[in-house]
Amino acid sequence: MAHIALKEGLPGIRGLLAYRPETAAPLSDLAQILLHDANSLERSDRELIGAYVSYLNDCYYCHTSHGAIAACQLGGDEALVEQVKENYHSAPISDKLKALLAIAGKVQRGGKNVQADDIERARSNGATDREIHDTVLIAAAFCMYNRYVDGLATTAPSDAESYRERAAGVAANGYSGLPAQLRAS
Amino acid sequence: MAHIALKEGLPGIRGLLAYRPETAAPLSDLAQILLHDANSLERSDRELIGAYVSYLNDCYYCHTSHGAIAACQLGGDEALVEQVKENYHSAPISDKLKALLAIAGKVQRGGKNVQADDIERARSNGATDREIHDTVLIAAAFCMYNRYVDGLATTAPSDAESYRERAAGVAANGYSGLPAQLRAS
Repeated sequence: MAHIALKEGLPGIRGLLAYRPETAAPLSDLAQILLHDANSLERSDRELIGAYVSYLNDCYYCHTSHGAIAACQLGGDEALVEQVKENYHSAPISDKLKALLAIAGKVQRGGKNVQADDIERARSNGATDREIHDTVLIAAAFCMYNRYVDGLATTAPSDAESYRERAAGVAANGYSGLPAQLRAS
Repeated sequence: MAHIALKEGLPGIRGLLAYRPETAAPLSDLAQILLHDANSLERSDRELIGAYVSYLNDCYYCHTSHGAIAACQLGGDEALVEQVKENYHSAPISDKLKALLAIAGKVQRGGKNVQADDIERARSNGATDREIHDTVLIAAAFCMYNRYVDGLATTAPSDAESYRERAAGVAANGYSGLPAQLRAS
């Protein structure tokens, strides 16, 4: 049971967005811009960064839901998503994405962990300043979302199918409509 | 020197907000709602929570700037702000604020650290569900802002007076105008 009284049937961050519509707007806008809007980083790369950081933060709802969105964007390749979460070093992904995941993992432990050689490795594998910026902010933002979801002890469904169903909707439509949907639900 | 090329003369998060105006908007809106808009928690209490979490995250720019804003709201009582950062247990603040700072400190280490007895202690000292919600989200949000500022190695002024000057402006006008100011600067 969550630490505060939330509407039933809205697990994870959804109950929190419905509880406080004022903060739901910027929280959803930030996710939309970082994860869904046009970017030189693929949507699936950005979702993998979010799922990986959520996995490191042990936030089941977030790493499962964003992992499911990434899998949906990757043609249903759930095994790849699990591999990235558990050991991205051995996953069949680009060296550029590996360098960005390394930065994200350091941000998860604390911003000062990111060193000049982490940035240099990302640049030498083709990452732009903007992509490095967005990677750091995605990782930092998930350190917020994860703490918000777990700090208020929200509930999370345990069946993979419910995450797949919602993932398909978010992959298609993004995050901006979420607060309005929740107010109507 | 920051890890990416930022406009000179804009330390801390200000250079980052100017670098990426799209994300600056929700980041500033979130700060405005959580820290400045009408709330049953005093503005100074909310700034103290943010400064305390930033201090725990060792983010000099954030704990100094939000500490300066709190001090400005507390009639210039910088000693109280320092006491809250270093050992709030012995500070002359309400038991309710102490219970909320305890929750914030647990969120800083990870959301799952917040236990039912932390919530019960806050409630028994008069905190509402909404105040508990906002405390958790303020603490979580500063875990994002701090990682954003330090993960990209932004610079921070070392003189206290520059923080006092900016604090007076934010205390009076809030956070919403920041992105527009930065675009114009």
